Amino acid sequence: MSGAFITLEGGEGVGKSTNLSFVADTLKAAGHNVLTTREPGGTALGERIRGWILEGDHGRLSAEVEALLMFAARAQHLEQVIRPALAAGRWVVCDRFTDATFAYQGGGRSANLALLRTLRAEVQQGLEPDLTLLLDAPLDVGSSRIAARVPDHFEREQRPFFERVRKAYLQLAADNPARIRIIDAARPLSAVQTEIAEQLNELIARLRP
Amino acid sequence: MSGAFITLEGGEGVGKSTNLSFVADTLKAAGHNVLTTREPGGTALGERIRGWILEGDHGRLSAEVEALLMFAARAQHLEQVIRPALAAGRWVVCDRFTDATFAYQGGGRSANLALLRTLRAEVQQGLEPDLTLLLDAPLDVGSSRIAARVPDHFEREQRPFFERVRKAYLQLAADNPARIRIIDAARPLSAVQTEIAEQLNELIARLRP
Repeated sequence: MSGAFITLEGGEGVGKSTNLSFVADTLKAAGHNVLTTREPGGTALGERIRGWILEGDHGRLSAEVEALLMFAARAQHLEQVIRPALAAGRWVVCDRFTDATFAYQGGGRSANLALLRTLRAEVQQGLEPDLTLLLDAPLDVGSSRIAARVPDHFEREQRPFFERVRKAYLQLAADNPARIRIIDAARPLSAVQTEIAEQLNELIARLRP
Repeated sequence: MSGAFITLEGGEGVGKSTNLSFVADTLKAAGHNVLTTREPGGTALGERIRGWILEGDHGRLSAEVEALLMFAARAQHLEQVIRPALAAGRWVVCDRFTDATFAYQGGGRSANLALLRTLRAEVQQGLEPDLTLLLDAPLDVGSSRIAARVPDHFEREQRPFFERVRKAYLQLAADNPARIRIIDAARPLSAVQTEIAEQLNELIARLRP
């Protein structure tokens, strides 16, 4: 039995953490062996890079350096965590993946897209998520939800940055309609989760032998 | 006035540190404003990555991950240190640069060479050293010189690894005869430094306006 690879994407305050748990619980209830993980992170190297980028040195790293670090962490994450889990038949649910690099470093910080595409091809070697749930909401919705949280550097960025991130995410969805499903996260949580459950059931049915 | 970029390369125990000082002193004596630096290292990010690769995570990082980290550090090093120094007319002497990634990760660990070439092109954007001094010696010469030093992970590697590194360095020199000069480091230091001085004088004459 082969596993499945599901990624959650979206900007700040769209409910990604809450819905990550919901996705994992839904898959477990359907009888799957689930692994949840996150990027950057998921390995010792990834967590170091996460700390470096999110907390320490923002502004001193160019967008290209951030992207190179993200893909280094991703290569390690794929090799040590994601590919072995998929090979063992597990369902891997990952909080952010390559789309986030295109949205944040590419869209938000204008990193060279040719470099990002090359790195994606080299690092993923054809492995793509079976399903990507893009939680999308207008900036004002997300902002109000994160107001109470301690900001990391991304959240301290200016509004135009987050507008570019959202636009890049929506463009990725437009370019990959079979893989990326846009979930309107401005609605009440129950409506969001009903739609997520539908998407998951569709994937389960599609992958059933 | 534009500066110059000189790199020192070579395996273990070939006298790289001693000769780095000699190169810097020779250039200073010729009236140049010299900056010495090293890779991986040369920036806060680079030193951190140096620590990750050399001390901590060996064997847990694939050759490709090591290469991505090296080029992330290099991009930062070029942007923060090397390019500004060259633009200010300084002569930059760097202990290892991209050739080392081709030799160690490429030759030694069989990292995908197409990936390394792509990263080189993207990160260097056409900037190459004006002169690379490759200190070369048979493995037995280098090994006896490093016997007294505390080994880091590269030095703990097996002999075939170092044979592959040396072979990759010599191939790089064969492919780039105008840039890379092979210095026979098995000779007495005085003979090695006489030849290094000749190479530097040639470069100084070539770059004189």
